[in-house]
Amino acid sequence: MRILIIGAGGMIGRKLTQRLIADGKLGGSAISHLHLVDVSAPEKPAAPFTVEVEPADLSQPTAAARLIASRPDVIFHLAAIVSGEAEADFEKGYRINLDGTRYLLESIRRTGGTEYRPRLVFTSSIAVFGAPFPEAIGDEFLTAPLTSYGTQKAIGELLLADFTRKGFVDGIGIRLPTICVRPGTPNKAASGFFSNIIREPLAGKEAVLPVSEEVRHWHASPRAAVGFLMHAATIDGDKVGPRRNLTMPGLSATVGEQISALRAVAGEKAVKLIRREPDPVIQTIVAGWPHKFDAKRALALGFKAESSFEEIVRIHIEDELGGKV
Amino acid sequence: MRILIIGAGGMIGRKLTQRLIADGKLGGSAISHLHLVDVSAPEKPAAPFTVEVEPADLSQPTAAARLIASRPDVIFHLAAIVSGEAEADFEKGYRINLDGTRYLLESIRRTGGTEYRPRLVFTSSIAVFGAPFPEAIGDEFLTAPLTSYGTQKAIGELLLADFTRKGFVDGIGIRLPTICVRPGTPNKAASGFFSNIIREPLAGKEAVLPVSEEVRHWHASPRAAVGFLMHAATIDGDKVGPRRNLTMPGLSATVGEQISALRAVAGEKAVKLIRREPDPVIQTIVAGWPHKFDAKRALALGFKAESSFEEIVRIHIEDELGGKV
Repeated sequence: MRILIIGAGGMIGRKLTQRLIADGKLGGSAISHLHLVDVSAPEKPAAPFTVEVEPADLSQPTAAARLIASRPDVIFHLAAIVSGEAEADFEKGYRINLDGTRYLLESIRRTGGTEYRPRLVFTSSIAVFGAPFPEAIGDEFLTAPLTSYGTQKAIGELLLADFTRKGFVDGIGIRLPTICVRPGTPNKAASGFFSNIIREPLAGKEAVLPVSEEVRHWHASPRAAVGFLMHAATIDGDKVGPRRNLTMPGLSATVGEQISALRAVAGEKAVKLIRREPDPVIQTIVAGWPHKFDAKRALALGFKAESSFEEIVRIHIEDELGGKV
Repeated sequence: MRILIIGAGGMIGRKLTQRLIADGKLGGSAISHLHLVDVSAPEKPAAPFTVEVEPADLSQPTAAARLIASRPDVIFHLAAIVSGEAEADFEKGYRINLDGTRYLLESIRRTGGTEYRPRLVFTSSIAVFGAPFPEAIGDEFLTAPLTSYGTQKAIGELLLADFTRKGFVDGIGIRLPTICVRPGTPNKAASGFFSNIIREPLAGKEAVLPVSEEVRHWHASPRAAVGFLMHAATIDGDKVGPRRNLTMPGLSATVGEQISALRAVAGEKAVKLIRREPDPVIQTIVAGWPHKFDAKRALALGFKAESSFEEIVRIHIEDELGGKV
């Protein structure tokens, strides 16, 4: 089996690569070839099969055709300009997130007709939804995004479904929850604090909490996200049906519940490293975000997320801190 | 006030043109200039203000910029490849319905920044929805189209909303019901019979009914459609809010109710001209179409449709047959 990961250099792309190398197979098929692509060439990992790394800019009209030439069986399309940058640089966001995705779909259509029909896993986002929301967002709720990033992802979903319906590709779009706990260093993303308030205290460092403990959000661990991608790569498309874009399951938790989980796992000493510093700008942004989903379809199709925030904290400790606090 | 109609040569475009000329104004502002554009130059009507007619192919990247150069205050974008053709010619559908719409939005953004921000009325369609449906489709139901045409319209809606949110244009998208009674001659569109069974008998001619009388569908007259466009051109955008795409009101009627209305208006003699000729292909297509909507938002915003099918029949007689059967 040949696998292509576009956007392999990002956090999820790197974790997916590690998992594929550890497993050596995907959905029962041995992996023979892994092609890792990002705008800068990803690092080449050691693996028991051929690994190729390559820089490519998907917004160049001919780039996708080149990546598809070796006819990968499974393509993970993770490449994207993130929300804040797509909002700040309107043209760049559309160029990468919309044109890049369309070039990829078109290159598959032109390569194969009905002969070549790879499974394409597209990472979408809960940003396809815009307030006001019901208490829990169901599988039939409209996609009325309030960011350019959300708009570009919603358009990608529509294209994916139509190209799949026409038999040009075998696509599955997955709407990822906010990934928590993100490894690395604190960043300035408005959502950064959800991870910072767990990761930093676990490392003995102070973290800033800019919102109240009542704020509720929708989380899944990096490990769960990789699990979603693997499951999406191998799931039976006929069971999914024509609605090829799925809201992933996750855990709805308040900031207060996050802090309780931290306390249960790492004690009051860790919790004391959280410094309250209310930020009205972040409070306003976060108020427009979804709190909770009713991801019935994805659950019925076998996608699995965490069932408690404590589990999310423990996964971070296992996967990032060698199991020790 | 300067008005541009793209797709002015079609049935709705011609009726909108007639209405604008008859009124001489739009939303209280006198019309000074009307620019009529279609892929073949529309016929030039007599009018009490300047009328310019021009052929233009919106799928040419530079065409929209040329049309926008005179900075129209209101733009009606009615141009589209229809459902059947967009399904048969995949590339043409995307070229006109998606690229054409995006070129138009981009040309407005590049022309004006925040200085030039015209009202853009975009005709979308109930084809943005795909089965299975609830009994009545509400304003928060997902857009999961089952045709390329519906996909292209749903993408146009997303772009319109995002360009509006960013302040580049002042867009309103309206999802038109099936227009009934369409004037002209019977065509081979799967939906043609909804109009044929009224129009042909009123003209003393036979019409074929390929489905059962229980089939329910969502209708509005050509006169109502022009009313939607005029209202969308002048409505206060702040009242609409960020969800700029609206399902238009309409009349949910069964074929049996259509026939009863024909009987009430034109008698049993007209009804006898309807010949039952069941067509399994058309029955299957029509079974996937929406039956009914709950168009709360559009109604609250003042959009108006017919309240009985008899009214739709009488409007056809007034507008197309000089008031006489």
